[in-house]
Amino acid sequence: MNSFGEALRITTFGESHGAGIGVVIDGLPANLPVDWERVQSALQRRRPGQSAYTSPRSESDRVEVLSGLYQGRTAGAPLTLWMPNQNARPEEYEEIAQVFRPSHADYTYFLKYRHIDPRGGGRSSARETAARVAAGAVALQLLEKLYPGVQIIAWTSAIGPYHTMYEPQRLEEVERSPVRCPDPEVSKQIEAYLLQLQAEGDTTGGVVSTRVEGIPPGLGEPIYDKLSARLAYAMLSINAAKGFAFGRGFEAAALRGSDHNDPFGVQEGQVRPLTNQAGGILGGISTGEPIFFQVAFKPIATLRQPQHTTTKAGEPVVLELKGGRHDPCPVPRAVPIVEAMTALVLADFALRIRGNTPLHS
Amino acid sequence: MNSFGEALRITTFGESHGAGIGVVIDGLPANLPVDWERVQSALQRRRPGQSAYTSPRSESDRVEVLSGLYQGRTAGAPLTLWMPNQNARPEEYEEIAQVFRPSHADYTYFLKYRHIDPRGGGRSSARETAARVAAGAVALQLLEKLYPGVQIIAWTSAIGPYHTMYEPQRLEEVERSPVRCPDPEVSKQIEAYLLQLQAEGDTTGGVVSTRVEGIPPGLGEPIYDKLSARLAYAMLSINAAKGFAFGRGFEAAALRGSDHNDPFGVQEGQVRPLTNQAGGILGGISTGEPIFFQVAFKPIATLRQPQHTTTKAGEPVVLELKGGRHDPCPVPRAVPIVEAMTALVLADFALRIRGNTPLHS
Amino acid sequence: MNSFGEALRITTFGESHGAGIGVVIDGLPANLPVDWERVQSALQRRRPGQSAYTSPRSESDRVEVLSGLYQGRTAGAPLTLWMPNQNARPEEYEEIAQVFRPSHADYTYFLKYRHIDPRGGGRSSARETAARVAAGAVALQLLEKLYPGVQIIAWTSAIGPYHTMYEPQRLEEVERSPVRCPDPEVSKQIEAYLLQLQAEGDTTGGVVSTRVEGIPPGLGEPIYDKLSARLAYAMLSINAAKGFAFGRGFEAAALRGSDHNDPFGVQEGQVRPLTNQAGGILGGISTGEPIFFQVAFKPIATLRQPQHTTTKAGEPVVLELKGGRHDPCPVPRAVPIVEAMTALVLADFALRIRGNTPLHS
Amino acid sequence: MNSFGEALRITTFGESHGAGIGVVIDGLPANLPVDWERVQSALQRRRPGQSAYTSPRSESDRVEVLSGLYQGRTAGAPLTLWMPNQNARPEEYEEIAQVFRPSHADYTYFLKYRHIDPRGGGRSSARETAARVAAGAVALQLLEKLYPGVQIIAWTSAIGPYHTMYEPQRLEEVERSPVRCPDPEVSKQIEAYLLQLQAEGDTTGGVVSTRVEGIPPGLGEPIYDKLSARLAYAMLSINAAKGFAFGRGFEAAALRGSDHNDPFGVQEGQVRPLTNQAGGILGGISTGEPIFFQVAFKPIATLRQPQHTTTKAGEPVVLELKGGRHDPCPVPRAVPIVEAMTALVLADFALRIRGNTPLHS
Repeated sequence: MNSFGEALRITTFGESHGAGIGVVIDGLPANLPVDWERVQSALQRRRPGQSAYTSPRSESDRVEVLSGLYQGRTAGAPLTLWMPNQNARPEEYEEIAQVFRPSHADYTYFLKYRHIDPRGGGRSSARETAARVAAGAVALQLLEKLYPGVQIIAWTSAIGPYHTMYEPQRLEEVERSPVRCPDPEVSKQIEAYLLQLQAEGDTTGGVVSTRVEGIPPGLGEPIYDKLSARLAYAMLSINAAKGFAFGRGFEAAALRGSDHNDPFGVQEGQVRPLTNQAGGILGGISTGEPIFFQVAFKPIATLRQPQHTTTKAGEPVVLELKGGRHDPCPVPRAVPIVEAMTALVLADFALRIRGNTPLHS
Repeated sequence: MNSFGEALRITTFGESHGAGIGVVIDGLPANLPVDWERVQSALQRRRPGQSAYTSPRSESDRVEVLSGLYQGRTAGAPLTLWMPNQNARPEEYEEIAQVFRPSHADYTYFLKYRHIDPRGGGRSSARETAARVAAGAVALQLLEKLYPGVQIIAWTSAIGPYHTMYEPQRLEEVERSPVRCPDPEVSKQIEAYLLQLQAEGDTTGGVVSTRVEGIPPGLGEPIYDKLSARLAYAMLSINAAKGFAFGRGFEAAALRGSDHNDPFGVQEGQVRPLTNQAGGILGGISTGEPIFFQVAFKPIATLRQPQHTTTKAGEPVVLELKGGRHDPCPVPRAVPIVEAMTALVLADFALRIRGNTPLHS
Repeated sequence: MNSFGEALRITTFGESHGAGIGVVIDGLPANLPVDWERVQSALQRRRPGQSAYTSPRSESDRVEVLSGLYQGRTAGAPLTLWMPNQNARPEEYEEIAQVFRPSHADYTYFLKYRHIDPRGGGRSSARETAARVAAGAVALQLLEKLYPGVQIIAWTSAIGPYHTMYEPQRLEEVERSPVRCPDPEVSKQIEAYLLQLQAEGDTTGGVVSTRVEGIPPGLGEPIYDKLSARLAYAMLSINAAKGFAFGRGFEAAALRGSDHNDPFGVQEGQVRPLTNQAGGILGGISTGEPIFFQVAFKPIATLRQPQHTTTKAGEPVVLELKGGRHDPCPVPRAVPIVEAMTALVLADFALRIRGNTPLHS
Repeated sequence: MNSFGEALRITTFGESHGAGIGVVIDGLPANLPVDWERVQSALQRRRPGQSAYTSPRSESDRVEVLSGLYQGRTAGAPLTLWMPNQNARPEEYEEIAQVFRPSHADYTYFLKYRHIDPRGGGRSSARETAARVAAGAVALQLLEKLYPGVQIIAWTSAIGPYHTMYEPQRLEEVERSPVRCPDPEVSKQIEAYLLQLQAEGDTTGGVVSTRVEGIPPGLGEPIYDKLSARLAYAMLSINAAKGFAFGRGFEAAALRGSDHNDPFGVQEGQVRPLTNQAGGILGGISTGEPIFFQVAFKPIATLRQPQHTTTKAGEPVVLELKGGRHDPCPVPRAVPIVEAMTALVLADFALRIRGNTPLHS
């Protein structure tokens, strides 16, 4: 099913090279004013062609509101957003229509559906994530209404062999880097590395880190719908994601309890953990401290270097993509997608607690 | 909500120190014969008191079938399993009832529910996982019926500073190690390390690795319910889990596409990936190759070393647990839980494809 | 699936002649005190053997709480109730094991599941409704906490050819009649009719009417989850139910708009409909006026008169039930079941609006 | 939430006087060829302005496919249909914007959402049902693929005081009547009655009957998701619906078991019920016999006769609608909506049994 979320549920639809991409956002309480400039600007951050380091396919991603708005506010009805495809060129994909691209979803879609839409991957294309980003930008505005001061900030913390421990405090620190790495030194290294990969016809993976501030304690449900479990679910649903970790993540596996535990103390009259190795989540429920997690992405599968593969009929061929420039790394554009999915998960939990009572105007 | 799964849905209930732990398994097709010895033996592997390295709380975990069975086969009705608590000692927990244990869910449950059940953590206790293991053992039998030869095998691949690349082929290789590490060398190191930690009143984390063989291509749904996304969801719902990664996981982030891609070739007349760095999943859908993933666990939060914390009233105290021996590491007992959640995720996807038509007898 | 409800979800399990009947109630906010006397007394009203007019199977229906309670209040965890079967006599059913009983679910279960549990109908037995009644009695207590003064009252408004327009104001008016008909005159007629039917080995159907007072405006969701649609769903899920109608129901089909419309006026400073032909629901949402609906039940299918049928092997036989006295009419015992399902539907909608925030203690 | 269905799930969106009306159909197996002429023709039957007896608002209801189709067949992705509004005249509704219309959803929407979209009722308008009809026409084509020969036929069996027992065998018998009553005599009476009501500025209700042939035994799930319960849920979700009954419905309440039971016999080598008073459903599961049910509709609330009501500010006024001709009866246009919801319920159950495996091409 193409839906995500319980109390706040998105359903996305549309193909990469069909008429467009859309999303129905259901469960939004009535009376939320939506700032469409901000939705548009989130989309702008995701779309291709932003810099020398990303794919040049140029989609304006201008969002149309098909339903759910009345006098600038949500009506308590499904809010539907639609982004027509303008730069769809199905014919460009004919050269690959008869070949399995290594490490591409073409192969599993073919086995599952017994047919294949070669036009840019159909539903499996990264283009579907535009719908997530638009919906996430609305969910963020709901969160801000419920929890004033909330901030979701994601950034490139590693690409290829380059990584940083730098934690940005503001979005601008991220956005000033063309690869969304807030550490100026490391950003430069990554930029050079990506240019080199493009020259070589190769690609790379990387890591997106995320910190959320201003979420009160109590979000998340015990057992299966832990906040951490829903975040993992959301993040692994993003194309090319290979891993999720929160707090100290895989490093925690090597630590001692006496090093990893966060002692409790009293700050401003409140009992709080004095450190936050937990990453803001204990027992699947938010502690009120900043939430921190990381998502690993594999290298983009489409490369210009010749690759061994077969046709759909099973004949070995060497695949050599000629036209088309592709992203050398999924990470810079994944940053706003990770932010969007984070907002959707958190807003869903917020609504589970408060219900769908309309917002006060 | 305390349910997991769509076409095959479990609902667990019960508290650590209440009457017992149970699970309703809904969606099982009719006519599945269930081997209860195997269910019992899976529970045996999870339960405490198995070795010097695990907590001595002794629960027989004898499973009672409350409903859903007719003449030894599933009836197409909810199958309900119940494991009465026999060794519940709520009074033992009085000493901690008034104190927040560092890095424990006590704290967030208290903030969320405004009350707290101190008796072994209530719902947040690892005891809830007995219900998952029992349900998973049934789901595995369904998978075996649908996909003869399917095998789910999980093992300890790291604890503290010790880790191994060894991949076991059979369950016995895992079970012969008291810490479920199939590499005899590393197992010895871990055993020594855990004894040392117990002596020091400390704990550690670790990593569980899993390999699934015999799953056909096509399991998993595009977009949100990717096989990888549902596995991540399931794994992060386990107590103490901090991370999930499949295929090359976080390592993939540092690789080049030309190193990470799996070329396609023809084997026994079928197009297949010639390597499996993808970990058996492409675009969220199983490829038919072995599925491989890892789950990171943090150190157990309960330690005997003195820790700084506060009472619930906010007074600083030093917490020094006297009685009770606790597991020094969650990983050995997490192995069967990871297997169980894997079986539940896979059986759910299998039923989404085939529906709930009764099995042939 | 054996679940009902979204924000408040019950999952029932158990068979008529298995170990017992149970229900998991998930989604209850924490801190609800539960009066178990009232749960027990609701069960008492449903159970067989209450009078000469109902089946003599005697089940004490004593409810055991398996989980979810802490110090007398809900813990925010699944509340599980269990009623062991004490009077199960699977052997009694052997005489009918090889025969399709006319108008019985045996037939469709056999076609659907390819096996059949003859022991009192297994899951299809009315015994399952004990779980609904217990859960409904808890849901009612939640409703009372949220909407003090709320009252759900159901009664027998017709059995066979006898019917009444009498609307009871209090439960006692219903309970003083052994057939739950608050109109003393009609009650007597029905009683005589049922005795006659028993003597003749025949059965009959009837109608249960329900009125709910004290529900505020705004419960129900537009489009699919209209309050009326969910009530219809719930009521038609009860065994032997054949129809649902609210407000003027099927009579409304013959009326003119000018006769059926409820004019608005002002009462005590509030705009309200001055009549309530709508039955308390407009556009699927509660108006704040009393909710009124009716449920039709068919005659009980099991009768002592000889009936033409076939064996499962397809041989024509005349079925003549010897032993066992059966209810001549489902309606008197359906009254508390209808009340229970009503409470479950309303509490579900209440929680959708307010979320699962714990109740104040 | 604005979704309906489990294995086949529709999500509708759009407002009466917004940009248009749409639906996402999720869960359709891949490879279903869709005949869009038939979808369009189903929409044609629902839309206003078909005859003197229906509202003259003229919407072409031309359906656009936004997603989910590849080379004329379903792609296994969400199929999204969109019908732009062309005749939306929000300004026409200004005269009623400040007044509660008696028996209209305006009132409850206002209480629930604290705002009101006066433009033709927004989401509560019958225009939403265009999305259901389009989706239902696709679902019907899926059913025909799965169960060749299946036929869903609905008709007007009563309007105001006129009713008929006539059961049509073919759609043409229904469609030749401008009020969709297959009984030529009664159709004439109804036509005259509706013209009279229009002249008097009044409205009426009626009953839609439905018969489904060609559904195999086994559709429907025990307990809550009985086929009858889901049909009731679907039908009561239609605007103006007041009641649902299947088989003998409310009449069954007055019958004896010996009259109502359907004896079993053998026909063409198969055990079958020899009569079908059950209406094709026993224990919530289809028997394989024709499914028969009825839906009652109240009179349309909007009438031209003067009515007592109040403004939203609470001042009593007499509402006298000047412009606009409205349907005098919801029933003729409800017929294709009932058919559509029937197809959606049945296709959902069919997919629960068979899963979402692609169709053979």
